[in-house]
Amino acid sequence: MAAPRASTCLLLNKGLKRIFSGIQPTGVPHLGNYLGALTSWVKLQEECSSVLFSIVDLHSLTVPRDPAVLRASILDVTAALLACGINPQKCILFQQSQVPEHAELGWILGCLTSIPRLQHFPQWKVKNTSQMNEGTAGLFTYPVLQAADILLYKSTHVPVGEDQVLHLELTQDLARRFNKKYGEFFPVPETMLTETKKVRSLRDPTSKMSKSDPQKWATVRVTDGVSNLVTIHSAITGLSIEELPTSEVTYDPDCRPGVSNLVTIHSAITGLSIEEVVRQSTGLDTAHYKTVVAEAVIEKLAPIRSEFEKLRGDGAYLEKVLQAGAEKAKTLAAPVYQEVKRLVGFH
Amino acid sequence: MAAPRASTCLLLNKGLKRIFSGIQPTGVPHLGNYLGALTSWVKLQEECSSVLFSIVDLHSLTVPRDPAVLRASILDVTAALLACGINPQKCILFQQSQVPEHAELGWILGCLTSIPRLQHFPQWKVKNTSQMNEGTAGLFTYPVLQAADILLYKSTHVPVGEDQVLHLELTQDLARRFNKKYGEFFPVPETMLTETKKVRSLRDPTSKMSKSDPQKWATVRVTDGVSNLVTIHSAITGLSIEELPTSEVTYDPDCRPGVSNLVTIHSAITGLSIEEVVRQSTGLDTAHYKTVVAEAVIEKLAPIRSEFEKLRGDGAYLEKVLQAGAEKAKTLAAPVYQEVKRLVGFH
Repeated sequence: MAAPRASTCLLLNKGLKRIFSGIQPTGVPHLGNYLGALTSWVKLQEECSSVLFSIVDLHSLTVPRDPAVLRASILDVTAALLACGINPQKCILFQQSQVPEHAELGWILGCLTSIPRLQHFPQWKVKNTSQMNEGTAGLFTYPVLQAADILLYKSTHVPVGEDQVLHLELTQDLARRFNKKYGEFFPVPETMLTETKKVRSLRDPTSKMSKSDPQKWATVRVTDGVSNLVTIHSAITGLSIEELPTSEVTYDPDCRPGVSNLVTIHSAITGLSIEEVVRQSTGLDTAHYKTVVAEAVIEKLAPIRSEFEKLRGDGAYLEKVLQAGAEKAKTLAAPVYQEVKRLVGFH
Repeated sequence: MAAPRASTCLLLNKGLKRIFSGIQPTGVPHLGNYLGALTSWVKLQEECSSVLFSIVDLHSLTVPRDPAVLRASILDVTAALLACGINPQKCILFQQSQVPEHAELGWILGCLTSIPRLQHFPQWKVKNTSQMNEGTAGLFTYPVLQAADILLYKSTHVPVGEDQVLHLELTQDLARRFNKKYGEFFPVPETMLTETKKVRSLRDPTSKMSKSDPQKWATVRVTDGVSNLVTIHSAITGLSIEELPTSEVTYDPDCRPGVSNLVTIHSAITGLSIEEVVRQSTGLDTAHYKTVVAEAVIEKLAPIRSEFEKLRGDGAYLEKVLQAGAEKAKTLAAPVYQEVKRLVGFH
């Protein structure tokens, strides 16, 4: 599959693109999210004229959530996105449940989606098993809602990680199926494989960094720092990483995943290439290198943390931002769904 | 199971009841629908203060529909309901897809519905098989949308036929499950087994009368009549019914299903009991009796047909009725769904 990078957006006709992406409100993003999706989101809003970022709270109900925690998480993630540089003047940042047409289009697309098709999603198999076969209709059909999220805005491009390619294929199929049945209407959205830095757990560099990692110091939240300088410093400098057969800084994910993870983080944080980071670290031993990376992370995260704190303390402002975003999203969604209703025969 | 009749509504506290029922827009109702659900609907609107009747177009997409036919069917069924006596001043008559909260609540309830639960619905097994295992997510999850239809209005009573009892049990379970997880909120709606006259096919009295029966004269539409007097007359008088061992009018559904079906129709049309109808027909042979029933049907349906024709010719009026009904339904649905969103943690 071709893998256009986010930056190819500039090469294309700016006016013709519409980009949609979603983030689950599962709490404050961690360093891996920041260096992965979020920095690419910030680039996208600069480079493309019509970009929607949705806090997909309907999706978050597909696993059991405590209402108070969910409510707080929605504001956490909103504050974190703004603190990371998402600018509601340059994109539409909104909460999915505030735009009714997501669920409405989801129903219609569900009537075009065969059950065997959904049974093949690996996410269903994994989560359904971990929930002891008590997986719900919501969990089973969420790829259909994802398709609705995207098609509702006639999105043309969707930034996806490799693990989301299957989901986008369903969206593409549903666009084609709808068009075939009801007449040409939805663009078939293209995948935009984004250039992401795969940051791994600080405790177990064979796993992805994850918000739900129960191990202490495995994860660095983008809002850690400032008042937690010492904590982050300890988290990174206290790492047990490979110091044999050499204590030099090298990049070798297979044999030295711990050191290599630090190099990846360092590269992503500074914007330098892996090679450049390794070159600059010549002569440092890994003990010193941990300090260098810890300081670079803290320097990057400190202003984000500070901005997050300020925003998170002003819930009314965050709600205003989400409200304004929902209004803009509705302006785009309403005429599309109105036309869908006409095409299927409701009007 | 207790089987309260529609008329028990009068015995209960009028102000505390809310009744919801839906009809699929699959064309003009036939005599069986009229004598079954529709006459009981007309009674309900007279007897109970808060009654909602929904033309459930979202459900109609669970089987393939031609958009132009669906559009016409929605207006057909609206005109037919009004012609049969549904009075939008006494109930809320509306089109499901015009109230976004149905699909929205459907999503949330889907996140509380386990997949194994849905696999046990006989409708899924039958329709999925008849569609060669190409059943869709819509078909699979429609009992969940049905639950949303009912709970969205905090309905307390639902008139159901016997074949719908399983569906209402799911609705009841979902109300309880939501209440347990998020706090007491939804009333657990009660079934109201309605007193329906089971009208059978005029061609094969062992089958229910059905709109999709391909046999000529099997089905009498409520809008047949007037210009089709002769047609209806022939349909009924041309019936091949049991004239042996006696040509008397008797009620014996097992041995003489054809005659008994006419007796049922006659009883329903006149409002007389089965026994009274049989008594009045003493001395008539079945040939004469067919004429009596045909004339009674025509007399009942003629004004309905005439009213239907008038209404169906005024699409703008029908749309105004549906629009006004949707506004009223939204007034009830919006605060309920707003509270649901708060309870699950979206706000």
